[in-house]
Amino acid sequence: MEHPPSPFAPARFPALPPVRGVRLSSCEAGVRYAGRLDLMLTEFTPGTVVGGVMTKSVTAGAPVEWNRAAISNGKARALVVNAGNANVFTGKRGRDAVEKTAHTVAEALCCDKNDVFVCSTGTIGEYLQEGRITDRIEGLTSKLSGSAWEEAAKAIMTTDTYPKGAVRTAEIDGVTVTLVGIAKGSGMIAPDMATMLAYVMTDAVLSVEVTQSLIASGADKSFNAITVDGDTSTSDTLLMFATGKAGHSRANSIGEERIEGFRRALDGLLIDLAHQVVKDGEGAQKFIEIQVLGAESDDAARCIGLSVGNSPLVKTAIAGEDANWGRIVMAVGKAGEKADRDKLAIAIGGTQITENGEPIPGYDEGPVTAHMRGRDITMTVDVGIGTGQATIWTCDLTHGYIDINADYRT
Amino acid sequence: MEHPPSPFAPARFPALPPVRGVRLSSCEAGVRYAGRLDLMLTEFTPGTVVGGVMTKSVTAGAPVEWNRAAISNGKARALVVNAGNANVFTGKRGRDAVEKTAHTVAEALCCDKNDVFVCSTGTIGEYLQEGRITDRIEGLTSKLSGSAWEEAAKAIMTTDTYPKGAVRTAEIDGVTVTLVGIAKGSGMIAPDMATMLAYVMTDAVLSVEVTQSLIASGADKSFNAITVDGDTSTSDTLLMFATGKAGHSRANSIGEERIEGFRRALDGLLIDLAHQVVKDGEGAQKFIEIQVLGAESDDAARCIGLSVGNSPLVKTAIAGEDANWGRIVMAVGKAGEKADRDKLAIAIGGTQITENGEPIPGYDEGPVTAHMRGRDITMTVDVGIGTGQATIWTCDLTHGYIDINADYRT
Repeated sequence: MEHPPSPFAPARFPALPPVRGVRLSSCEAGVRYAGRLDLMLTEFTPGTVVGGVMTKSVTAGAPVEWNRAAISNGKARALVVNAGNANVFTGKRGRDAVEKTAHTVAEALCCDKNDVFVCSTGTIGEYLQEGRITDRIEGLTSKLSGSAWEEAAKAIMTTDTYPKGAVRTAEIDGVTVTLVGIAKGSGMIAPDMATMLAYVMTDAVLSVEVTQSLIASGADKSFNAITVDGDTSTSDTLLMFATGKAGHSRANSIGEERIEGFRRALDGLLIDLAHQVVKDGEGAQKFIEIQVLGAESDDAARCIGLSVGNSPLVKTAIAGEDANWGRIVMAVGKAGEKADRDKLAIAIGGTQITENGEPIPGYDEGPVTAHMRGRDITMTVDVGIGTGQATIWTCDLTHGYIDINADYRT
Repeated sequence: MEHPPSPFAPARFPALPPVRGVRLSSCEAGVRYAGRLDLMLTEFTPGTVVGGVMTKSVTAGAPVEWNRAAISNGKARALVVNAGNANVFTGKRGRDAVEKTAHTVAEALCCDKNDVFVCSTGTIGEYLQEGRITDRIEGLTSKLSGSAWEEAAKAIMTTDTYPKGAVRTAEIDGVTVTLVGIAKGSGMIAPDMATMLAYVMTDAVLSVEVTQSLIASGADKSFNAITVDGDTSTSDTLLMFATGKAGHSRANSIGEERIEGFRRALDGLLIDLAHQVVKDGEGAQKFIEIQVLGAESDDAARCIGLSVGNSPLVKTAIAGEDANWGRIVMAVGKAGEKADRDKLAIAIGGTQITENGEPIPGYDEGPVTAHMRGRDITMTVDVGIGTGQATIWTCDLTHGYIDINADYRT
């Protein structure tokens, strides 16, 4: 936990406004860490609806199981998150710990325990001492406030080197609605310190179906388009809570024109948070954008982009500031999607390097080499098959990643 | 290329006997490297049959395209391999280079150019100056010998830190047949120094169909069960040449009982070579065997094993000698195959750590920690679904991998 901060760490946490119907508080519960915030509670006003997406891992943890069941009701009154222990692979004791936590929160807030969302992030396979959490709920309840975003963003961190938050506004029926998001994750998965967690709170008035649809489609363009190491967490969770306090008439259908601005704001917020996660990727020194064009479909483009973005050889080359585009050719080749080798066109930093399956005669490596020395690396890969496209974001693979992960738990 | 040798490097290259009908020679052609062997030629007696498997990459190189066509005839008279340039992503010039090389070899050995196999390994996307190869063919032809295995194994190396060879014998109809194999590869793929290449030469008398069937099934149990970094080469090639000089009657069917000993010998030879490749994996300090049991099918077991074996988090934990089995849980969860979390049983170094989806109460980490300090790491993962099983071999992910790959080309 004493690894140097990411070079992308912002000078300060962004100013995040209150969201009507949302109050938060955080504390030091000592779940695993000492001397830092590691527990946060959020209360949502009655009537708040929720949508979300969670890890597809078949070894998902007890909290994910709980939330999968809770989300089916579409209602939310609270969210409680601890860092330091993921409560994964902990059997019945783990399930009991989630249930006790939800029960304690429900008692404190006078709500149904099935409306309480519980998330845990940290080591896998160690029993969670839920007493450290439940003992703090009363204290957390007593100091709930609409502005405690930075503390909440800090309380959910594991190997993150900076807290992550973002805000957007949009108009629905002429009413300004606010979207605030916080996230944690130092990789698509951090070490066994499993996980990406992200929460969006908005006062927009949305039906459950609209909430679920918007967050699912937004996830595909943001968190599902980033990778640090290709390892998928047992706890990945993205939830959006809509309190309905903005006062416009309820949006009941995803097709309504009046929520297009909200959708764009949400997508932008999610991409912002996703970029913050990648930029805090373990050991990251470079932020990499991979644009794939000309694929058979958008899904195929995404698969090819992830093949490039997950390739240890591509990522180490970028760490070495080496414009080694042959490794991109390799990663396209192994993706398992259609690509026309003899039309493959690769550009780095806006400089076209290959065309029609060959290096461009007289291609000048100078500008590309200069681009590789920067923090932000862009590449475009046209695979010459169709019109499918996707953008993937990742970071480089450095000695820092090995340092962090070869001795995390010890 | 000045990286330290693998700790698994053998004290000396094994003594490999001649194989009737096979003669080799190697030289310094200066394709890319100076002052080392980088070109080898093998001549096969007329009547030699060939089978093999090649990379499935859609960006495969010109030599792979050539060999895919050549192998359809089932006949082989020569194999020529250069190191230093993979002749991949080189367009028509690349295809012409292969054709000229095959033509020159065919002229020198008085054979059909379509019976000449051509392999290249090295950087991607640079034009191969085939003159450096064709100029040397006459010299190579003049010094062909039945015993020049070590030179041949050295000539095909790229980032390998030691040459790789192995021998087996078997009996068919009471006749002793010999199988000799050489391989290169410092990873399932080495850097952009693409590739795993392996060649088996035998004097057994086999039909083309039997040769192809044996090598394909052997590949699944050996080279297709190893991984260094999950990156698939544009040039991976495994070929078996059977000269038919042993004198027993031809094996025409894969079902013949009398070739079972040969099959076992071949499988053992391929696993031996595959292990040598993993043990020379870039930066490898540990050799890891992952046994997966209880999967839905053998294919599912292999997929789960590769998910574990390719996980950067599992591999860095092992590099750090950390028995961080939570990362194995994670890798099983993300594999995309069925697994019963609540039956998942993990053992490391023979010590059972989890049962029924939980750590075993009172599990003693001592013996496991001691095991993690060794060179050879074993783990067994029972996913609790069915009877499918597979064994995967890999190496750890260390600072050495970053060193080698972050600055390879420059």
